[in-house]
Amino acid sequence: MNKIAIFPGSFDPITNGHVDIIKRTLPLFDKIIVAIGVNTQKKYLFSLEDRKAWIKEVFKDEPKVEIDSYNGLTINYCKKAQASYIIRGIRSALDFEYEKTIAHLNSTMQPDIETVLILSKAELSSISSTIVREIIIGNGDIGKFIPHSISDSITKDKIHRQ
Amino acid sequence: MNKIAIFPGSFDPITNGHVDIIKRTLPLFDKIIVAIGVNTQKKYLFSLEDRKAWIKEVFKDEPKVEIDSYNGLTINYCKKAQASYIIRGIRSALDFEYEKTIAHLNSTMQPDIETVLILSKAELSSISSTIVREIIIGNGDIGKFIPHSISDSITKDKIHRQ
Amino acid sequence: MNKIAIFPGSFDPITNGHVDIIKRTLPLFDKIIVAIGVNTQKKYLFSLEDRKAWIKEVFKDEPKVEIDSYNGLTINYCKKAQASYIIRGIRSALDFEYEKTIAHLNSTMQPDIETVLILSKAELSSISSTIVREIIIGNGDIGKFIPHSISDSITKDKIHRQ
Amino acid sequence: MNKIAIFPGSFDPITNGHVDIIKRTLPLFDKIIVAIGVNTQKKYLFSLEDRKAWIKEVFKDEPKVEIDSYNGLTINYCKKAQASYIIRGIRSALDFEYEKTIAHLNSTMQPDIETVLILSKAELSSISSTIVREIIIGNGDIGKFIPHSISDSITKDKIHRQ
Amino acid sequence: MNKIAIFPGSFDPITNGHVDIIKRTLPLFDKIIVAIGVNTQKKYLFSLEDRKAWIKEVFKDEPKVEIDSYNGLTINYCKKAQASYIIRGIRSALDFEYEKTIAHLNSTMQPDIETVLILSKAELSSISSTIVREIIIGNGDIGKFIPHSISDSITKDKIHRQ
Amino acid sequence: MNKIAIFPGSFDPITNGHVDIIKRTLPLFDKIIVAIGVNTQKKYLFSLEDRKAWIKEVFKDEPKVEIDSYNGLTINYCKKAQASYIIRGIRSALDFEYEKTIAHLNSTMQPDIETVLILSKAELSSISSTIVREIIIGNGDIGKFIPHSISDSITKDKIHRQ
Repeated sequence: MNKIAIFPGSFDPITNGHVDIIKRTLPLFDKIIVAIGVNTQKKYLFSLEDRKAWIKEVFKDEPKVEIDSYNGLTINYCKKAQASYIIRGIRSALDFEYEKTIAHLNSTMQPDIETVLILSKAELSSISSTIVREIIIGNGDIGKFIPHSISDSITKDKIHRQ
Repeated sequence: MNKIAIFPGSFDPITNGHVDIIKRTLPLFDKIIVAIGVNTQKKYLFSLEDRKAWIKEVFKDEPKVEIDSYNGLTINYCKKAQASYIIRGIRSALDFEYEKTIAHLNSTMQPDIETVLILSKAELSSISSTIVREIIIGNGDIGKFIPHSISDSITKDKIHRQ
Repeated sequence: MNKIAIFPGSFDPITNGHVDIIKRTLPLFDKIIVAIGVNTQKKYLFSLEDRKAWIKEVFKDEPKVEIDSYNGLTINYCKKAQASYIIRGIRSALDFEYEKTIAHLNSTMQPDIETVLILSKAELSSISSTIVREIIIGNGDIGKFIPHSISDSITKDKIHRQ
Repeated sequence: MNKIAIFPGSFDPITNGHVDIIKRTLPLFDKIIVAIGVNTQKKYLFSLEDRKAWIKEVFKDEPKVEIDSYNGLTINYCKKAQASYIIRGIRSALDFEYEKTIAHLNSTMQPDIETVLILSKAELSSISSTIVREIIIGNGDIGKFIPHSISDSITKDKIHRQ
Repeated sequence: MNKIAIFPGSFDPITNGHVDIIKRTLPLFDKIIVAIGVNTQKKYLFSLEDRKAWIKEVFKDEPKVEIDSYNGLTINYCKKAQASYIIRGIRSALDFEYEKTIAHLNSTMQPDIETVLILSKAELSSISSTIVREIIIGNGDIGKFIPHSISDSITKDKIHRQ
Repeated sequence: MNKIAIFPGSFDPITNGHVDIIKRTLPLFDKIIVAIGVNTQKKYLFSLEDRKAWIKEVFKDEPKVEIDSYNGLTINYCKKAQASYIIRGIRSALDFEYEKTIAHLNSTMQPDIETVLILSKAELSSISSTIVREIIIGNGDIGKFIPHSISDSITKDKIHRQ
């Protein structure tokens, strides 16, 4: 049986932290779907199209990585995508508490889906999409926080949120 | 003297977690007032009337439980309701840090009101109103998270927030 | 039915932190048993007799407070003492994590015994028996940390541990 | 070389917690700039002018304290102000996790700027601007939480946010 | 290439918590080695032989599970056993902080070994070998905390530590 | 007035984490005393002489750094050494909770001594003397964790504890 995992998130935008988690977990799975959750009540800095395009660019040479987007509950998307694993990166005890709640809840609703937690590397543990967005808005240099291959395309002009 | 406690919250909507805390603390008190705090700057998913009605339904056979709503500071409501105790359920260290701040503050402003912290049961510790709201919006099944007696009435049609 | 609670601990020695928790919870119960747990594998700085005597002195005018000691599991002692409540003071998120584990475990083994958590006051939250012992050994002044009525009797001469 | 530190924040409004941190760190530095960060996407309860005026009033007799405001990233402001130190007060483990992320990030972007963390005093650790704002809105008494010299001027009439 | 993981620990004794983590991660790997770390400076309640025998009994029908013991650093054992993954169960934020330190350290010393963190189920998160040992010593009933197949053999007579 | 700080610890042995904290805080003070606390009830892996010699070697070119040892309470040593500041490095929320308790206690006993908390750099935050000792005992390579100038002298032969 194929081992399929999803790596859900907003990826607004994808960071070196995300890329590191995906690369480190790829050997464990036959396929990892980078799954952009779409929440109509949430505002994103960049458009879904841009966010997808950046992830595609980063993983264009990794055939085991797919990119998709979904609405609704993550476990429902897992069933649709025939994924049995959810990958989550954790940086801090705060992340852990949040992931624990979600993972316990998912396991109450869908006991056959397993959550695999992967620790961010120490030197990447202060990076988050939130922080990258603030640096972009504050005109700082995000070059150390996002993949080289897309660092020229993630700019203030791409800001989508009104 | 009567031992009166309030159990404050938004109850948007009431969950099995809330019900468990109330039932476990009832023997300690002569009366528990389930007190819905109304914050005009906050948006609720369900109307105050629906939230009140659901709590009433759940505790219709518990004469020691009353339901009320209030504006302003919780300690001011306590004085008005002649309650000397505030009951708070805690699920995680995050909840604890939040409750500690509020309890210390309340005790600075009103030293004769005591906060009693009760741990959620392990199997209920991933349930919160926030999560129940997300499951409702995401079309998931909330049957395991809210009392049976009201599970038919908490539906998407009741959503009040525009 | 009588509401009996135990307040278990080593009380090596009793501190102002302990006394504050007991005084604040007394109105909730008909009797609080200050119960010194005896663990033969643990070394105590002061003898069981001294620790008991100090607690007795502090609460000599509180008829609702009893002092006792016990071996074995706390929940077994609760049953023997007909206590339905365990009171625990918490100072920090670390305390909380510890108490959560113990409370969940106790509730697995004995579901009808309830744990009531009470927050230390902010100004008492750095006091612990461990710290008081270190100050005594380091020849510091413990006057601010233990009840006045016993501050003359808790001295280095009373140290029992070899 | 002069030792210049900034103490960044929203100060919406300044509290006794802020004042205590500044007074305790003043001896370490030649100048502390209380620097109000202006984020156009954030709403403040009080106007920038009022917030500045209150801080000025509180420190009118401290020649080493200056007041300023800035847009954009804090480390960019540090460079402009020739400050090598960022002072941050921490009250809880939650504050700590947040400050850790920001400090690591700042040190990635600007390694020569050092963050100095100072613990809130126990009795001030439940005070925050957020809480003071809620008490003001809830018609409670903030006298214990803000400096005496400005307690008459921080009133509901000054509320700026629409 | 074979995917080999080790699940290191003292297993003094093995609990339902350990068994659950192993069963949930088995589908991800070709082999899981339950590896008992032997630290000559640490005292164990049960003998290495008993601890091994109990794990063997529990997994006698799982051909993918092997049992072994080792001295020295875990990453050195990984290399010897050709394992590229270390599995760790986490129950709480405290566990998380501990595992983070160890995992970062291991990755500094041996970057090609990956740590996979798996959350304990909510209802198992208060179980630990430490607690099971205390219940055994306190004459409590450990039936709910260890696998049925070995619950008759883990008794006070087997205590090895003097 | 001279700004004197102490940096207290066991330094069993000194690590790159300690060295980084000292170097980063040196510009703030006129003198930093690296103060080895001697607790007769604690066992150390290395002798006090070796631990002192290693620190001296590391800071032989830093005239503002002194090395000393002391018995009893840290705040009493501060008074003797005329130090008004205690420097502490923090790596994690666990460290923070510990330091908070100690700092609050010290400020209760000696309000004029200030504790300055400095965050470990992300890449050094998994290093501790405890871990370095375990690697030495487990025959691992500590080269990345201790200063180059002493890495040849910290060896298993120097182990002092019986």
